[in-house]
Amino acid sequence: MLFFRIKCVWILNDLKDTILSFISINNVDIDFGLQFFKEESFKKGTFLLKPNEYIDTFYFISNGCVSYYTIEDGKTQVMELFTEGYFFTDLYAYIEEIPSNAYLEVLEDLKVYAISKEDQQKIFDYSHEFERFGRLSMQRAFVNNFRRINELRSLSNQERYLQLLEKRPDLFQRVPQYLIASYLGLTPVGLSKIRKRLSQV
Amino acid sequence: MLFFRIKCVWILNDLKDTILSFISINNVDIDFGLQFFKEESFKKGTFLLKPNEYIDTFYFISNGCVSYYTIEDGKTQVMELFTEGYFFTDLYAYIEEIPSNAYLEVLEDLKVYAISKEDQQKIFDYSHEFERFGRLSMQRAFVNNFRRINELRSLSNQERYLQLLEKRPDLFQRVPQYLIASYLGLTPVGLSKIRKRLSQV
Repeated sequence: MLFFRIKCVWILNDLKDTILSFISINNVDIDFGLQFFKEESFKKGTFLLKPNEYIDTFYFISNGCVSYYTIEDGKTQVMELFTEGYFFTDLYAYIEEIPSNAYLEVLEDLKVYAISKEDQQKIFDYSHEFERFGRLSMQRAFVNNFRRINELRSLSNQERYLQLLEKRPDLFQRVPQYLIASYLGLTPVGLSKIRKRLSQV
Repeated sequence: MLFFRIKCVWILNDLKDTILSFISINNVDIDFGLQFFKEESFKKGTFLLKPNEYIDTFYFISNGCVSYYTIEDGKTQVMELFTEGYFFTDLYAYIEEIPSNAYLEVLEDLKVYAISKEDQQKIFDYSHEFERFGRLSMQRAFVNNFRRINELRSLSNQERYLQLLEKRPDLFQRVPQYLIASYLGLTPVGLSKIRKRLSQV
């Protein structure tokens, strides 16, 4: 049993570190929580979610990349690009328990730790600290969503591009340009123009 | 002391009921929490917040109405209209502890229960159940923000108008039309046209 716990914690080390960056919690309690996360792998091109499906799973990415997008009037609208260290789900559909209108598509072979809503509730019931982790994660989700909407409204195209380049330079190597463009609220041509203009400066 | 507690709970009854609609918590614990809320009154026309100011208070509205808006390029953009039963603050500035870029303006004489960030933390530390309340409130804030953005994008002007009329008919009596229009993402003229068209059906 001790061996199992050590093994379990070792495997989930990146997830554990991320949780510990939000809260202080003792080893026994965090190991109680970690046991509910199941390691899963998905191949590039797989969909974790499509429109009209329900989702009751939260994922933590250990390796890989996932695109969260909708298609409206034939146009792809990328809402988020999730990479290592991100917790993700279709949070709106997950909370409201309604069918999603979005896609979660695996852009790179993916290793995740997945937890069901039922098991998440067990962790929240078990520990005040995990409940706090839930509160702070939800707070983070609110802030990210609010900031993203504000930036799309208030920053120029070029400012948004430069900001993404600074904060998440890896995305430009990993994700097709048309998805980066959509995430920035641009057309692929618009993105090309900005890159060309900046390369000439 | 007993008298004080009964008095306190009686005054804060609407706040207590709202908290109890989120969580199950015993009377001793909820009274511990309620003691940190201070009753405050503000006259119509007062500002609880202006751009470049910090905010470290959360409010619960017992009576009255508050407009939460920004002014961009001289144009008022109403993000939310808060009325009885709402918890509110400028949540983004509050969480991030940065200066706000928004206004919180009292549209109707206001009675609120206010709690400082420091006191809120005391409540979260004291009780697992209050921590859960915090998580669920934050979840609600995420959902409301996400839904609002989606509705502004995906519903027609008329659909948004009819939805607001159904969900919050009182707003149309209480709030100036140009603020309602802004909240709906319309010009005042656009709002008039929709009302006129519908009144002729």
